[in-house]
Amino acid sequence: MGTGHDTAGHDTTAARVLGAHAALRTNTPLVQCLTNYVAMDVTANVLLAAGASPAMVHAQEEAAEFARLASAVSVNIGTLSPPWVAGMHLAVEAAVERGIPWVLDPVAVGATPYRTRAATGLLERGPTVVRANASEVLALASSAGATGSRGVDSTATTDQARDAARRLARSAGCVVAMTGERDLVTDGERDVVVHGGDPRMPQVTALGCATSSLVAALCAVHEDALEAAVAALAVMAVAGARAGGLAQGPGTLRIHLVDELASLDAQRLGDGLRLS
Amino acid sequence: MGTGHDTAGHDTTAARVLGAHAALRTNTPLVQCLTNYVAMDVTANVLLAAGASPAMVHAQEEAAEFARLASAVSVNIGTLSPPWVAGMHLAVEAAVERGIPWVLDPVAVGATPYRTRAATGLLERGPTVVRANASEVLALASSAGATGSRGVDSTATTDQARDAARRLARSAGCVVAMTGERDLVTDGERDVVVHGGDPRMPQVTALGCATSSLVAALCAVHEDALEAAVAALAVMAVAGARAGGLAQGPGTLRIHLVDELASLDAQRLGDGLRLS
Amino acid sequence: MGTGHDTAGHDTTAARVLGAHAALRTNTPLVQCLTNYVAMDVTANVLLAAGASPAMVHAQEEAAEFARLASAVSVNIGTLSPPWVAGMHLAVEAAVERGIPWVLDPVAVGATPYRTRAATGLLERGPTVVRANASEVLALASSAGATGSRGVDSTATTDQARDAARRLARSAGCVVAMTGERDLVTDGERDVVVHGGDPRMPQVTALGCATSSLVAALCAVHEDALEAAVAALAVMAVAGARAGGLAQGPGTLRIHLVDELASLDAQRLGDGLRLS
Repeated sequence: MGTGHDTAGHDTTAARVLGAHAALRTNTPLVQCLTNYVAMDVTANVLLAAGASPAMVHAQEEAAEFARLASAVSVNIGTLSPPWVAGMHLAVEAAVERGIPWVLDPVAVGATPYRTRAATGLLERGPTVVRANASEVLALASSAGATGSRGVDSTATTDQARDAARRLARSAGCVVAMTGERDLVTDGERDVVVHGGDPRMPQVTALGCATSSLVAALCAVHEDALEAAVAALAVMAVAGARAGGLAQGPGTLRIHLVDELASLDAQRLGDGLRLS
Repeated sequence: MGTGHDTAGHDTTAARVLGAHAALRTNTPLVQCLTNYVAMDVTANVLLAAGASPAMVHAQEEAAEFARLASAVSVNIGTLSPPWVAGMHLAVEAAVERGIPWVLDPVAVGATPYRTRAATGLLERGPTVVRANASEVLALASSAGATGSRGVDSTATTDQARDAARRLARSAGCVVAMTGERDLVTDGERDVVVHGGDPRMPQVTALGCATSSLVAALCAVHEDALEAAVAALAVMAVAGARAGGLAQGPGTLRIHLVDELASLDAQRLGDGLRLS
Repeated sequence: MGTGHDTAGHDTTAARVLGAHAALRTNTPLVQCLTNYVAMDVTANVLLAAGASPAMVHAQEEAAEFARLASAVSVNIGTLSPPWVAGMHLAVEAAVERGIPWVLDPVAVGATPYRTRAATGLLERGPTVVRANASEVLALASSAGATGSRGVDSTATTDQARDAARRLARSAGCVVAMTGERDLVTDGERDVVVHGGDPRMPQVTALGCATSSLVAALCAVHEDALEAAVAALAVMAVAGARAGGLAQGPGTLRIHLVDELASLDAQRLGDGLRLS
């Protein structure tokens, strides 16, 4: 339905989303990703296709130094272990010092105490954006992580988690980009809902993780973090919906998604963009 | 040729394979995978498409605790190193304590003493199922691992290894699922051969590893481990044969396989199932 | 334009490239890859499709022993960390002792001092071939690594780096295979340029890394390292160009590339081969 039904505020947001996407293509920001082993491949391919330059650099021996070359840092705790957590803190510290954006993807926070400590320890460093599903937002917001996340899949609905997302955004002073059937982006004051995608996207592993790194890429080229996060989610939603029209299942969906990210231009993004 | 030529015993097995597959779709079991870096992506995508919920969690700091949330554990030594082996033992110990199934994939056992020690050390903890190729079964059965495995590919024929599989199943008290041109599943007493697949499947990396995790998923929803292993191999064989009809090579084969796993229903599985 | 415009020297090289490719198919060499997490999947699939047998084995506990089974070793520092660098040195040492070829891919050398030290430390062990992009060749040739590599993507042109490649080849006593819009292979005396591929190949992550391991595979079956490197790059260029004709973007390009590698025969390779 396009953006015809949006309010003037959302029309402005839509225009700025298009601007952020154009800036991504122009600037090819270097995004340092400290992400999980499952997500490495699809994340790199999503970033390259969308117009960013990914670099997977995690070791303590170079994580901070590399962050001084990068335009944004993306941290994902999916397959965490102590040396990786140490590298994450060093990269984040360097990002904060330099004032470049960084994104936290707290995969499966709440599933184990170790994972919760890692996520909350990183959260304390003040991410620009937290990208998570509803269960993870609930667990991170409750801080104790005692709310029954069963792993990487989301079991709470977006509606149940909306309040938690706002609270988390306010308490952590960041933007929360909560993905699900509909995506919610909030800074605790402003909310934007991003519609679109394909119902089979959750069947493709690590698309959420890749989205987190795409949020980092857009934060690197667009000052307003809420709009940058909306832009990243919108790019995935529009490309995902287009790919869904070509796909016979989750295997072909992933492949066509990468193609659609690469061929996405202002016309296609504008036509497919649905915000509310 | 369907199951028309099967004995009454195999008709029963076929019916139970269909039941196990239906249970997988209904229950979406959470499968904790401690697997190799090469296999992470395709394993997660195969499990998601087939109907399970994968979680790659390996660190000693949380492997055991996560296993208490999981419905099954899948352990694969492909790219092993000491911290991972330690995490594997912790996860397996927790699985055994809870009585949930766990599967061992002893990749390239016999290639180096370190690898053989890792595989035999895990074998001693009593896996529910060992999923391996013929060379690996021979190496593991001989325990000394001195029988010339040259790596991850199978050089022994299924026929040569059949006796070794039975011996291994009896000595380890587990089911052995030996994949190859034809797949053999044995508990040392009963043998089931699964036919199908596509001759190009060995050209797609880590499909055997992914199959091991699918065995774990099916063991989580079906009590009889031999039948669960047969079901996993049959799901891969039927989806693989269907994908093979659409594929131009190993690249497209992998993608169509994921699609076919997702669209596999009782009708398609029943039509393609070939056991003997 | 085929090889019709080539000199007699290049006709000879072309014939020997076809011979090397045929030897790859006949011998299925076992290639031990110590490569980065991003590249694992596509590297294994490229090697399998092209006709080699990949094995990802990196741990210090077995890297050297496995190298005694392998026909070639491929080392890539993309996601390096101290335990991996230690395993790389052990594998390379064993390769050198046995006189089997090994290939160095110095990903993003120059980006951080740690990375530069790792690359130069490995270079000192005398690789058979260094496979790199132009920025990496410049950084490695300057040894100080102070020439502003911004990560894994190439920012220098092939022409600017040609001299550096020759110098590096002479000083390190190895072949340098520098990939880019056109690929240059040099041993410091002889230069061969490989044309072809598809302009979207840099949008597919880790194809350069996969190419490095394919160079190792061809070195295992063909004595002359310069010709083996040319053969590997030519195989990727011809299969890439063919895949490009079928692809709608970088997603489908990667998949068709794997198919085309698998179906590449002497006729197709000879028809597509463009050397100068």
